[in-house]
Amino acid sequence: MRHEVEPLRHGTMRERNLAVVLGEIARRQPVSRARLAEATGFTKTTVSSLVASLAGAGLVREDGPVRDGERGRPATAVSVNGDRVAGLGLEINVDYLAACVLDLGRRIRHRHIVAADNRDRAPERVIAGLTGLAARAISAAGEQGLSVAGAVVALPGTLDQGGGRLRSAPNLGWDDVPAGELLDAGLPALPLAADYDNEANLAALGELWFGDGPALGSYVHVSGEIGIGAGIVVDGRVFRGAHGFAGELGHVVVEPGGPPCACGGRGCLEQVAGQEAILRGAGIAAVTATSSASPDGPLSALVARLERGDERALTAVRRAGEALGQALATAVNLLDPDTIVLGGIFSGLAPWARPATEAALADGAGLVRRSPPRLTVSRLGGDAAALGAASLVVERVLDDPSRLVTRC
Amino acid sequence: MRHEVEPLRHGTMRERNLAVVLGEIARRQPVSRARLAEATGFTKTTVSSLVASLAGAGLVREDGPVRDGERGRPATAVSVNGDRVAGLGLEINVDYLAACVLDLGRRIRHRHIVAADNRDRAPERVIAGLTGLAARAISAAGEQGLSVAGAVVALPGTLDQGGGRLRSAPNLGWDDVPAGELLDAGLPALPLAADYDNEANLAALGELWFGDGPALGSYVHVSGEIGIGAGIVVDGRVFRGAHGFAGELGHVVVEPGGPPCACGGRGCLEQVAGQEAILRGAGIAAVTATSSASPDGPLSALVARLERGDERALTAVRRAGEALGQALATAVNLLDPDTIVLGGIFSGLAPWARPATEAALADGAGLVRRSPPRLTVSRLGGDAAALGAASLVVERVLDDPSRLVTRC
Repeated sequence: MRHEVEPLRHGTMRERNLAVVLGEIARRQPVSRARLAEATGFTKTTVSSLVASLAGAGLVREDGPVRDGERGRPATAVSVNGDRVAGLGLEINVDYLAACVLDLGRRIRHRHIVAADNRDRAPERVIAGLTGLAARAISAAGEQGLSVAGAVVALPGTLDQGGGRLRSAPNLGWDDVPAGELLDAGLPALPLAADYDNEANLAALGELWFGDGPALGSYVHVSGEIGIGAGIVVDGRVFRGAHGFAGELGHVVVEPGGPPCACGGRGCLEQVAGQEAILRGAGIAAVTATSSASPDGPLSALVARLERGDERALTAVRRAGEALGQALATAVNLLDPDTIVLGGIFSGLAPWARPATEAALADGAGLVRRSPPRLTVSRLGGDAAALGAASLVVERVLDDPSRLVTRC
Repeated sequence: MRHEVEPLRHGTMRERNLAVVLGEIARRQPVSRARLAEATGFTKTTVSSLVASLAGAGLVREDGPVRDGERGRPATAVSVNGDRVAGLGLEINVDYLAACVLDLGRRIRHRHIVAADNRDRAPERVIAGLTGLAARAISAAGEQGLSVAGAVVALPGTLDQGGGRLRSAPNLGWDDVPAGELLDAGLPALPLAADYDNEANLAALGELWFGDGPALGSYVHVSGEIGIGAGIVVDGRVFRGAHGFAGELGHVVVEPGGPPCACGGRGCLEQVAGQEAILRGAGIAAVTATSSASPDGPLSALVARLERGDERALTAVRRAGEALGQALATAVNLLDPDTIVLGGIFSGLAPWARPATEAALADGAGLVRRSPPRLTVSRLGGDAAALGAASLVVERVLDDPSRLVTRC
């Protein structure tokens, strides 16, 4: 289980020191060089030289005077510069493509969602659509004086770690697609190499930066539409497991011997609480589920029935909520999170599903913990994963600025 | 979900630098000061001063000449000093008390297991027994010239994080016992404050240092006797969750609506594959199960029956193995480990339980991963947790030596 908080292997002391100083600036900003020297143990000369390098790369800036602790003398403050460097987040999903640009202060500078039914479209065409969106985003960033440091791409499926090979994306009908390679060929060269991750992980990170934030503590974020995935976030980082497959909540068995699943198992959560299972249970024809290109199209018919109190729809959604709670109880027993965030289809269905989820969670998580974790509902829109992807670029720049700092 | 690989908050540059240099020495030993300067980016003067401080604290030593890379000039090598500082591991378990002393090279310098039926004994008496063992261990270390830097204590139950309050230890019949407080009062003062953790986590760490080691990758270690727990180890550190309750494998539901569990749930793994459930299934009276004070006493009758091919015993153990495999499949879907290690009662029962475990695991982990993780059987004895506890002390010293280095 790889965990992102691995000790960074900085090649040289200067690289390490740049990261230390930028980290302290991000934590304490606005902050004087004298405070930075205190906090890091570096001499003021070293701090000044490191700050100058970071400023030269557009990563920090001087901010005007700040009062310097007890001594009260005004000093020049340093802050992270939100106006020069940015991260690009991209997302391919079943019903849309998305791009967004965040500056180093994680302000959204550009956000573009294009509805598109990507089901069964050739990967090359979908990826060409996304690289077009990327080019527009980079140019929109440039018009604001921002230079894009790197991109992370959210893909809706199981990825081989490293190269962004999409082993399987059942919602798209894709199987073993070299998405990373195709994207690498289509994206412009940026200082940091493009990176790929699955939608569940990045949507979870989006919640950290654009949802409830640090109040979430460590959390499990449920996402997905036809499939059900979870992003596990610990200490602000995604927990990926040894091969990037952690968080496969959809394949936790909730009905041993139940309906067969594409994964080879039986009674997986997805077979009871996935979008298609719910629609089927509610008596809504599958053809409706795949005929709409709007982000929440397949669910709108369901929500309409729920709102008018249709008993069959209510029962299907309650059963899904209950099964979700059972699977989450297992996740709680194994992962012990502070919070569970319902995203994906479950945020829209929360008014009807949540009581059953909470009851099953309270039952199953039992007495091992004193109480089940807090359950919240995501307020982010469809492009949560693109926001998370762009955040990850920002995080990488702040964690290791040396790649953007020209050597002296 | 707290993860141990948190960035250390070193107060000063010197503390951080001591840790950096000691870390490089541990990784590269024997290593010259010149190589250390290259690896860390520090000047040779800084390296020499840091090495002198570490040597003064007995943490490193000069080792005689080493050939220094391409230049071929012999230089004085520095290594971790295994002969001055040690870690103490202690363990309270149902059937025994254990203490062990490891030097900084993780060689076992003292190992003492005392069989004792601790079930329903007063916590104060059990703890007095353990502090007696600790005193003997510290004195045995002293006779070898080792000074004990700190102790970690393995407790068989659910702990409140921090103070070592044992909320519940069903195998001991203890409930809400301030074990940490009682131990703090009974243990001698050591440079590092004593720390407490549960048996499952520390037995898992023992496997890392005294079992298959780094070949395990990231892994889930199954332990426990009457209860079933798991220690989750990622990048060499225990994954504990937000409140220290991660890894409650025993409460993963394998039979929804099945037998009620003390946790308040139904059909928990413990109710199907825990020691008492297996013995009951095998037709061995519970009185046998609790009448022996030898570490594997309750199981010896079972193993005898298995060895002579008793069908009822075989069926009970196979069913337990299957249920364990189902629960592990869930753990694999959520945590994606490289390896699963069967410890606790399952190491002794592996010849009969393992095929069923592997089959259920292969079924349940399905196609999400290409193949289920490797399954291995622990070869460690009963005091795995004490070994893991002592290892944790060694790790803490190596991670942050500043507390042992007197300030200059």
